[in-house]
Amino acid sequence: MSGANGRAGGSPERAGFRDLGFARVDTAREARQGVAECVYAPGKEVSEITAIVGELLAACAGPVLVTRAEEQTAAEVLAAHPGGAYDPRARLLTWRPAPPRGFSVAVLSAGTADGPVAAEAAAVSRAVGLEATAYSDVGVAGLHRLLDCVGEASRNQAFIVVAGMEGALASVVGGLVAHPVIAVPTSTGYGAGLEGVTALLAMLSSCAAGLTVVNIDSGFGAAMAAHRIAAAVERGRP
Amino acid sequence: MSGANGRAGGSPERAGFRDLGFARVDTAREARQGVAECVYAPGKEVSEITAIVGELLAACAGPVLVTRAEEQTAAEVLAAHPGGAYDPRARLLTWRPAPPRGFSVAVLSAGTADGPVAAEAAAVSRAVGLEATAYSDVGVAGLHRLLDCVGEASRNQAFIVVAGMEGALASVVGGLVAHPVIAVPTSTGYGAGLEGVTALLAMLSSCAAGLTVVNIDSGFGAAMAAHRIAAAVERGRP
Amino acid sequence: MSGANGRAGGSPERAGFRDLGFARVDTAREARQGVAECVYAPGKEVSEITAIVGELLAACAGPVLVTRAEEQTAAEVLAAHPGGAYDPRARLLTWRPAPPRGFSVAVLSAGTADGPVAAEAAAVSRAVGLEATAYSDVGVAGLHRLLDCVGEASRNQAFIVVAGMEGALASVVGGLVAHPVIAVPTSTGYGAGLEGVTALLAMLSSCAAGLTVVNIDSGFGAAMAAHRIAAAVERGRP
Amino acid sequence: MSGANGRAGGSPERAGFRDLGFARVDTAREARQGVAECVYAPGKEVSEITAIVGELLAACAGPVLVTRAEEQTAAEVLAAHPGGAYDPRARLLTWRPAPPRGFSVAVLSAGTADGPVAAEAAAVSRAVGLEATAYSDVGVAGLHRLLDCVGEASRNQAFIVVAGMEGALASVVGGLVAHPVIAVPTSTGYGAGLEGVTALLAMLSSCAAGLTVVNIDSGFGAAMAAHRIAAAVERGRP
Amino acid sequence: MSGANGRAGGSPERAGFRDLGFARVDTAREARQGVAECVYAPGKEVSEITAIVGELLAACAGPVLVTRAEEQTAAEVLAAHPGGAYDPRARLLTWRPAPPRGFSVAVLSAGTADGPVAAEAAAVSRAVGLEATAYSDVGVAGLHRLLDCVGEASRNQAFIVVAGMEGALASVVGGLVAHPVIAVPTSTGYGAGLEGVTALLAMLSSCAAGLTVVNIDSGFGAAMAAHRIAAAVERGRP
Amino acid sequence: MSGANGRAGGSPERAGFRDLGFARVDTAREARQGVAECVYAPGKEVSEITAIVGELLAACAGPVLVTRAEEQTAAEVLAAHPGGAYDPRARLLTWRPAPPRGFSVAVLSAGTADGPVAAEAAAVSRAVGLEATAYSDVGVAGLHRLLDCVGEASRNQAFIVVAGMEGALASVVGGLVAHPVIAVPTSTGYGAGLEGVTALLAMLSSCAAGLTVVNIDSGFGAAMAAHRIAAAVERGRP
Amino acid sequence: MSGANGRAGGSPERAGFRDLGFARVDTAREARQGVAECVYAPGKEVSEITAIVGELLAACAGPVLVTRAEEQTAAEVLAAHPGGAYDPRARLLTWRPAPPRGFSVAVLSAGTADGPVAAEAAAVSRAVGLEATAYSDVGVAGLHRLLDCVGEASRNQAFIVVAGMEGALASVVGGLVAHPVIAVPTSTGYGAGLEGVTALLAMLSSCAAGLTVVNIDSGFGAAMAAHRIAAAVERGRP
Amino acid sequence: MSGANGRAGGSPERAGFRDLGFARVDTAREARQGVAECVYAPGKEVSEITAIVGELLAACAGPVLVTRAEEQTAAEVLAAHPGGAYDPRARLLTWRPAPPRGFSVAVLSAGTADGPVAAEAAAVSRAVGLEATAYSDVGVAGLHRLLDCVGEASRNQAFIVVAGMEGALASVVGGLVAHPVIAVPTSTGYGAGLEGVTALLAMLSSCAAGLTVVNIDSGFGAAMAAHRIAAAVERGRP
Repeated sequence: MSGANGRAGGSPERAGFRDLGFARVDTAREARQGVAECVYAPGKEVSEITAIVGELLAACAGPVLVTRAEEQTAAEVLAAHPGGAYDPRARLLTWRPAPPRGFSVAVLSAGTADGPVAAEAAAVSRAVGLEATAYSDVGVAGLHRLLDCVGEASRNQAFIVVAGMEGALASVVGGLVAHPVIAVPTSTGYGAGLEGVTALLAMLSSCAAGLTVVNIDSGFGAAMAAHRIAAAVERGRP
Repeated sequence: MSGANGRAGGSPERAGFRDLGFARVDTAREARQGVAECVYAPGKEVSEITAIVGELLAACAGPVLVTRAEEQTAAEVLAAHPGGAYDPRARLLTWRPAPPRGFSVAVLSAGTADGPVAAEAAAVSRAVGLEATAYSDVGVAGLHRLLDCVGEASRNQAFIVVAGMEGALASVVGGLVAHPVIAVPTSTGYGAGLEGVTALLAMLSSCAAGLTVVNIDSGFGAAMAAHRIAAAVERGRP
Repeated sequence: MSGANGRAGGSPERAGFRDLGFARVDTAREARQGVAECVYAPGKEVSEITAIVGELLAACAGPVLVTRAEEQTAAEVLAAHPGGAYDPRARLLTWRPAPPRGFSVAVLSAGTADGPVAAEAAAVSRAVGLEATAYSDVGVAGLHRLLDCVGEASRNQAFIVVAGMEGALASVVGGLVAHPVIAVPTSTGYGAGLEGVTALLAMLSSCAAGLTVVNIDSGFGAAMAAHRIAAAVERGRP
Repeated sequence: MSGANGRAGGSPERAGFRDLGFARVDTAREARQGVAECVYAPGKEVSEITAIVGELLAACAGPVLVTRAEEQTAAEVLAAHPGGAYDPRARLLTWRPAPPRGFSVAVLSAGTADGPVAAEAAAVSRAVGLEATAYSDVGVAGLHRLLDCVGEASRNQAFIVVAGMEGALASVVGGLVAHPVIAVPTSTGYGAGLEGVTALLAMLSSCAAGLTVVNIDSGFGAAMAAHRIAAAVERGRP
Repeated sequence: MSGANGRAGGSPERAGFRDLGFARVDTAREARQGVAECVYAPGKEVSEITAIVGELLAACAGPVLVTRAEEQTAAEVLAAHPGGAYDPRARLLTWRPAPPRGFSVAVLSAGTADGPVAAEAAAVSRAVGLEATAYSDVGVAGLHRLLDCVGEASRNQAFIVVAGMEGALASVVGGLVAHPVIAVPTSTGYGAGLEGVTALLAMLSSCAAGLTVVNIDSGFGAAMAAHRIAAAVERGRP
Repeated sequence: MSGANGRAGGSPERAGFRDLGFARVDTAREARQGVAECVYAPGKEVSEITAIVGELLAACAGPVLVTRAEEQTAAEVLAAHPGGAYDPRARLLTWRPAPPRGFSVAVLSAGTADGPVAAEAAAVSRAVGLEATAYSDVGVAGLHRLLDCVGEASRNQAFIVVAGMEGALASVVGGLVAHPVIAVPTSTGYGAGLEGVTALLAMLSSCAAGLTVVNIDSGFGAAMAAHRIAAAVERGRP
Repeated sequence: MSGANGRAGGSPERAGFRDLGFARVDTAREARQGVAECVYAPGKEVSEITAIVGELLAACAGPVLVTRAEEQTAAEVLAAHPGGAYDPRARLLTWRPAPPRGFSVAVLSAGTADGPVAAEAAAVSRAVGLEATAYSDVGVAGLHRLLDCVGEASRNQAFIVVAGMEGALASVVGGLVAHPVIAVPTSTGYGAGLEGVTALLAMLSSCAAGLTVVNIDSGFGAAMAAHRIAAAVERGRP
Repeated sequence: MSGANGRAGGSPERAGFRDLGFARVDTAREARQGVAECVYAPGKEVSEITAIVGELLAACAGPVLVTRAEEQTAAEVLAAHPGGAYDPRARLLTWRPAPPRGFSVAVLSAGTADGPVAAEAAAVSRAVGLEATAYSDVGVAGLHRLLDCVGEASRNQAFIVVAGMEGALASVVGGLVAHPVIAVPTSTGYGAGLEGVTALLAMLSSCAAGLTVVNIDSGFGAAMAAHRIAAAVERGRP
């Protein structure tokens, strides 16, 4: 039934979601996909975030995440829901991080400016129970830095490669390792870098076979892709 | 005749419009199209908006609208022309809203961040005499939320579907219902979303036949398209 | 169960569709949306089109359409399923066209080169039971041609406006009439016309409120949008 | 000879220009093209603008212009070089405007938001000796406003048509009159308007023959194009 | 009244145009704009072109043009309407070229590959009564070729500058002369030339003030712009 | 040492590759990544393909693949290297396909026209030892077709989702399943589909978390991404 | 003086060029830039190429080149001007190649499909007196192939790096060597490669400092850039 | 070994770089390429810049550079590492500039607004030991300014040409001189200039053979390209 302003959603309880009017919280997602709906903070009021987090903490058992949360927002939401943690570099709020699942990810980044995106990839990975090891500033302009660490990094089960500008690091890594490689283009750079579009197109056009790509600056998306792969590995275990 | 600064328009009264110098108010539009000229606030001085609204209130009989009005602008124009109302979420100023015309619109939106565009669509619809019911946060990442409400929403005569990112909600709705579906891409998202261009292109390329699309973030345009359909329905009544 | 080549779909009968292996024919669409699934010919083998048409003729009661069919394809499919008709200008194959539904569409086109798209819009409209009247070559470079016919055309319940190059006809019509206006950009033109993208963007950016837009060269999409509006009018009848 | 920091230009006097180090003022342009070099203010220091204006006032006999000057900049430059005038709407500084040359321009603009660009076109036209009459808010959404004034406007020798969004006004005017039509796309609009690119492409693709187009928001460029046409008319006089 | 296929236009004679069903020939354009409607051949049947030309020859007194006509098309149309001439390089069909109007155009082109576009510009100019002199292969890679002829070319009243690749010729000419300069970008070049889009954008962004630009490869458009300027000059004569 | 024409590569044997002059065959890739270098046929002479395949068959132990091979090319290469097989729909040549590795992939495609890309994804998957089951024509315009099979398809370890036009199928699948989802945009569609770019951007902007994307029409890339995931699963087994 | 068709250029001899009517052959370019004007074949008649080559052979002393010449064109021009040579892979016609100048270039290419562009770069380099050594198929998907030869290649004075798809080879080479690196993007690839635009943008955005880039597929441009560097080296010799 | 937060890099000393955790400083680059790694300031914390500069000053012998440093950042880093110098117009921090290497560069810029990019090109050139002479405001709108200085400028060994808008200066210079020409497009301009993309595309499409291009606004990249050419000249000396 609709309220006074004609908005549907008077009946808050329905199968698999909870209708808050401004949001239909997908309370079935944890069962369906292994991780509860993650809250993307930009464009939401603090009160809205707080309410959604409350629903998720109540309806789910595992980790609850808010991504791209600015410091002030994070503080206010944490005040309402104590027990969480805020990683300012990753801009990530987490409650109830998952225990380790025996799947680890190497997060390589090309330059220092790609750091926040790499940090988000690593922090989200850890929040959902993956191990993550960061290898920063291994861009191809000084190839020996990459060659020095790629062997060690190969002990992980998957790679997340974070790079802006021309994104060449993804191709080079893709050619060296046999692992799943999730490439994350970043908006680092200027001019012909087109705010990450060039790195995005370059990664999609890579000469290294079997690379996959997520949206620009989406460390979150890369971590969730790793989560899906980890789930496949878990299903593959006897 | 031109004035001192060479601007034409000395004779303010002409057939079908009123020349204010900085604007030629289309006083014939209400008769021609059922709704008076709507005032797009950005780029206009408050004094200009106030003058145009004055002309429209004098020359027309039905609703007068100012869209995309910021709060301060709204307050000043309302002070000059009392009797109107301001909806801050929709950023809409309305005087003399039309009485209900027996045509209702379901306004579905994919995510919470699409809310302001959906609010504009609903508020403009109501201002011109349509009923509007909002179904928020029914994006396809949790498809059961949509399947839960699409039956109820189908009691309306038309759908407005508001979605950013990849805009897939429009295709899914278009495949489920037989109604007119007006798709509104929004600038919600980042990176490959290209500030709404991706959703726009995706909605235009939909595999569901007979969808139509309006400009990015144009809740106003969608409502006016619904108004045109309502007029067709009215003409179709005996 | 999968076949020898691992393709699923051994069980051809399922609720609401029929699985031909290479296609899942949506036999429920006629009931759901008023018109059976329409077959887009490009990229399909003649044998595939023939098989799908056979399923649709068997499972549905109303019109069956194949769009963008070249002459040779049309002849072969008609030979397998006699009783249909082919409109070479519209490149449309039709069986069992719907009886008139009391809803008529004016199809305006800007130039002679827009003719095939306008023809498709009109032919599909007629096939699904709408009346359609064409007004050709009424582009704004000779505005009196449009002004001469727009009054007569307004006796229809909706407008389809077909234009390439800069697509200005849609804005001008949209400013003159109160009807639903479905704008179809075409790929007519060269250079800065960008194969229809310019007309598409221009129609979406129209200063006339409430225009809606479909894909480039999609006379079919415009007709199906008109079908949805006609259905709304039909629902609106006592 | 180069200075301490290796910058060439020690010898300030050369044939046809004056080397200020940071600028080579083209003192021959007035003789070559009828109007002195115009100074584009953005990106220049006030001291640089002041120095360049000083050179131009000394070396030339006719009008000296600074375009896109913000109010504060204008005040400082005027303090250094009294006798000029500032038009805040056109953001134009002028010294020694040219006497009337017997050539007049109609400046039509589609909407109120196109006003500043139209104002620049008119003000620059007047500064170089052309007459300019403005016809504001004659966009095609209310076509009667244009039809009302196009006859009067045709008494001018050339048209400048300023429009954003889809820019259809240029095509309609181009189809109605036999005059030179200089189309100026503006960045007015949002979404699919692409900050003026859509209007630009649309004007270039116009179905009306013989339109010409200048850069987005370039009222200055349109006025200078009119100046070139006026010069051709002057050469054509016995 | 509509015919059997629902096409409007049963009454072939209306004020200012003649309705052939597939075309509304604008018979009033010659009086309105000085030159009859020009027929763009691509996308039209030979029979359609022939019929339109017949109408124009009957209804108008001056030149009749068909542009972009291939050789075979030209031969067939000429057979139906003797007395015309075909210029294969310009792909132009002309009947009754206008007598000289005392206005001449210099057509400069940057390279040999720009020749056909320059030829169209010159041939259309001559057909409508302008004199045209071609200066071929004066691109800026060998600047002395341009400097050698620019003085002689300046005896004309206007410049048409045809260039592909980076289109720099337009800027250089625009800086040297005081005349109207109509820039025509061409699709000559490859890669970053983007089929003429780069030259188009470059010409619009020219540092030379008052250049105007027409569509890519549109020698026709440039000539018609020159025709409009010539008309302004004619109006300016005592 | 360089040859007569200055081409390096006189010494054909080097560590990890074999220098054929026109190609450096990466003979170490099989050991490094589990599958030998795959040969992309377009742009290579048949003799070049034949020579490279010969090297790979000699130097490697497992499957050898040539992708995008036309029928005639395939026949000639097979004649030189008997024992391989050609799949004309997938345009794939295979020698020594790998034995099943206990990892299976569901290949979903939105429409019949996406078939060849889906076929390539399935055929390459099988050639490298993965099981693949195809679910064709499950696009969202008839959502029940997808809902009917998604449960069965979830018995596989990973999803490859092939879709053109707006690519919405990827988002819907991504929201329903917990598996790795590799989205393959296709060039199916027209106009605003921009030859696959729209589907590509839409998939990258998906509201479903953790989707990954490969290049347009790259069924091969998707299969190789699945191969990398399979390898991770294999490493994860005790 | 102009001829009958109004084309300027009656006086064929002028300082520094020779006017053939359809071309102004820049006979001064050899003295000015060390190499005569090179003839780009596409879009020119064989007779035009023959005439231009004749002028260049007569007026210049050093090498004369025709680029992008198809086999049949090459044969006809060679018949008219014996003594030249044709390289079909490079599509280059050469007369009087320059003697070695003591400057050598390494031409690296990423894949076999980049071969023709690399061949043009090498052949043009040799024609103007540079030594060129080709290193083919050293793309980063198999990095050891590059590491194997980069030391040897560094004995040259400059690098030309030819790569399509994502163009990562340029960045990797740029990071390894201290030489001038001229990057040539190629149109090799599909989909997100955007016909070379992605490689172009990627190379321009390279994280390796001091790379320079030429147009897509322009082996010629890279060789001429190397020629300019060689000239700088020659000027730098005592 | 990874630290508490899972970041690799516990062992700070490795061959050829120094691992600071947030950065792997490439201490081998000076030996490899003649200049130490340059620090791009945007996106780095002052403390990070300070630490990296400290490493570079310790590990290298020659110049150390920080580019695009804002004034406040510069002051703080200089306070930590005295002995450096800051050029505010070039936004460049330099320690231990290299002694002159006998190679000089002419830096031409088209307009005053291109000054900061030209200043960066010149300052970086000088910091790495090249001489640089600036020729400002020599854009082609006043061609005599360029012709006046190009002879003098040709005494340098290479040209850097800095231009925004349509970038025509690069083509004109490229046609006049035999030197290496490094073109730097700038974001100067508006509208169709597309923030430097138009100049970039135009320079890449230049009709002058052998131009090379760097990223938009990259004075740094141009100087480093000149450094590479200087190194080639040095290697070419006996």
